[in-house]
Amino acid sequence: MAIITLTTDLGDKDIYQAALKGSILKLLPAASIVDITHNVSAFNVQQAAFILKNSFHYFPDGTVHLIGIDTVFTKDTKYLAVHYKNHFFVGADNGIFSLMFDSDPDEIVEINIMQDLKFLHFPLADIFVKAACHLAGNGKLKDIGLPIDNIERKMNLQPVIEKNLIRGAVIYIDSFQNVITNITKEFFNQVQQGRNFTLSFKRNETITHLSWYYNEVPEGEKLCLFGISDHLEIAINKGNASGLLGLGLGDTVILDFE
Amino acid sequence: MAIITLTTDLGDKDIYQAALKGSILKLLPAASIVDITHNVSAFNVQQAAFILKNSFHYFPDGTVHLIGIDTVFTKDTKYLAVHYKNHFFVGADNGIFSLMFDSDPDEIVEINIMQDLKFLHFPLADIFVKAACHLAGNGKLKDIGLPIDNIERKMNLQPVIEKNLIRGAVIYIDSFQNVITNITKEFFNQVQQGRNFTLSFKRNETITHLSWYYNEVPEGEKLCLFGISDHLEIAINKGNASGLLGLGLGDTVILDFE
Amino acid sequence: MAIITLTTDLGDKDIYQAALKGSILKLLPAASIVDITHNVSAFNVQQAAFILKNSFHYFPDGTVHLIGIDTVFTKDTKYLAVHYKNHFFVGADNGIFSLMFDSDPDEIVEINIMQDLKFLHFPLADIFVKAACHLAGNGKLKDIGLPIDNIERKMNLQPVIEKNLIRGAVIYIDSFQNVITNITKEFFNQVQQGRNFTLSFKRNETITHLSWYYNEVPEGEKLCLFGISDHLEIAINKGNASGLLGLGLGDTVILDFE
Repeated sequence: MAIITLTTDLGDKDIYQAALKGSILKLLPAASIVDITHNVSAFNVQQAAFILKNSFHYFPDGTVHLIGIDTVFTKDTKYLAVHYKNHFFVGADNGIFSLMFDSDPDEIVEINIMQDLKFLHFPLADIFVKAACHLAGNGKLKDIGLPIDNIERKMNLQPVIEKNLIRGAVIYIDSFQNVITNITKEFFNQVQQGRNFTLSFKRNETITHLSWYYNEVPEGEKLCLFGISDHLEIAINKGNASGLLGLGLGDTVILDFE
Repeated sequence: MAIITLTTDLGDKDIYQAALKGSILKLLPAASIVDITHNVSAFNVQQAAFILKNSFHYFPDGTVHLIGIDTVFTKDTKYLAVHYKNHFFVGADNGIFSLMFDSDPDEIVEINIMQDLKFLHFPLADIFVKAACHLAGNGKLKDIGLPIDNIERKMNLQPVIEKNLIRGAVIYIDSFQNVITNITKEFFNQVQQGRNFTLSFKRNETITHLSWYYNEVPEGEKLCLFGISDHLEIAINKGNASGLLGLGLGDTVILDFE
Repeated sequence: MAIITLTTDLGDKDIYQAALKGSILKLLPAASIVDITHNVSAFNVQQAAFILKNSFHYFPDGTVHLIGIDTVFTKDTKYLAVHYKNHFFVGADNGIFSLMFDSDPDEIVEINIMQDLKFLHFPLADIFVKAACHLAGNGKLKDIGLPIDNIERKMNLQPVIEKNLIRGAVIYIDSFQNVITNITKEFFNQVQQGRNFTLSFKRNETITHLSWYYNEVPEGEKLCLFGISDHLEIAINKGNASGLLGLGLGDTVILDFE
């Protein structure tokens, strides 16, 4: 079963999703198309990277992930197909690959199957779909492009260590209004070394206990835990943490270890 | 064809749907995954029960319905797999099964395949998916859990009879802003016995005719009918009944029979 | 692979999508169901026509397109199945077919498989699904209805020529807030004959250059181009054209050729 996932900012009401899915089914009728989301904020490469970085590994090896964010064609645009940890990714060279990958990909090619510029305004439904269907049908990377070494680099905002502190930032608010920071479980554990901590943020709020479950505290009370993306997350049991605690994207959170 | 439906409050923009769908496809690549909805209000067990109760029977026998509402793991949480009217259901024992079923299920087991707590924060993508894929692949209930008799009971708000009246309540507002009450066609017929009626609700509005079609009245006028869920519904032909009539969840409606 | 696409105003939160999809899978378990959108504005036949007209051709020949807009049953309602350019369409005779097609369909039948009125309130899940599955399974049009010649006609608002001007109108705003007019590339080219032009609209804004790409101008600046639907579109590079330029549905745009 050839699986192609879609992560885009195309929304759920226009012709764009249909153009994309119809084009895939025309080339590869047996494709199993899975929507990761079409509701990434328009052109938000960081947000798309966070979503795909934390979800692609749930899919079977060999899955092809088509990334439709910030893909508009210009004469300088590069479109890439990438092999990383037994998955394939097709997207524009706008920095998203460096934001998603913790290590170097196994193979990167710059796609060169763009002779037909008929659908110039919508590279997704032409170039990306051709590349994704080729890969989903077990085609090789080298048959759709030339190997390259340098890709566009963007940096995720990293937490910093200052003496006994970790200074992190809010990088994502999910649908439940849980507040997700850039402090990973691995980084936390390295610094903590078993010490107690105080997590503090806006409005003098503090949390000193790391929970395992959202409902380890009474309903309506705040907690912190590592969510399924293994990032430190501030939540309210069955409540709107972002709204009630006034925490938004980019806000600072501080972990103070004793 | 193994069909697995999804009814959750996970929303349409985060990593959670992808984690769920990827996990299913990893275990059962041939699964046909159907989204019933991911837009149940967060933790709203009643709403999810109403949606699934009124839609599961449209699917073929043998379909597995995964219910991702209020599933957070704690040491007291029970996860159930249920066989009811030739369909399978996997969900948390939070009362949703009693809200959905009019009669006793054929078989209920408490799922006990939770040795691996790696994905503790997201039982959906681990425990539920394993159980659902087992059942969708024709596996037996007894191989994923032990039989139990008692499940958590919750009661839907029932309409009451007072002399010549039925006193009901609004239990659902749909996307068209149609107002759906807890008065079923069966209950209505039992009480009506062919008598005329006056349906009254907020702002002294009344309706005395039961329509068959939404457009049996002129555009912009109110009507009542039994919608596809066989519940008495107050609507405005091509209009927003909830907004224009001021009817919201929990509001009372009264049927007065002559 | 039998593909059935869905274009409806049913929204993403109720039982209606599930009833539709479950019914399809019950009749045709191998069907590949593709959501074009369920977010057409309620009863908006023009909007649905624009979306499907500009996307159906991306799908493989033989695809069946089920149109769930303004389909409520009354005694005068006709439901049609139509063969057009190697695609099949099932919908109500409410004018949508005339809005979608530039030329006469190859075959039109009025569906007459409505003996069973059990699901009267939801023709989609009964009549439409039966017709769509019949066609997707290579059944013939003549086996589900009788040929007819006359269908309901509705006219799209057409641009008009006045001396050196084209007077057009905004007919669609997409998720990116791009503003799409009723001036097609073909019509533009016929009138332009190589001449320079000034496109003017609300608030004395003008554009005199036709772009090829959205990012041919600096971020935040306005442009016009022919989008993937081949309609003249007013956009702002990575910005909200509708909001910032004050352009909404029905607004006039004028092309003045020198």
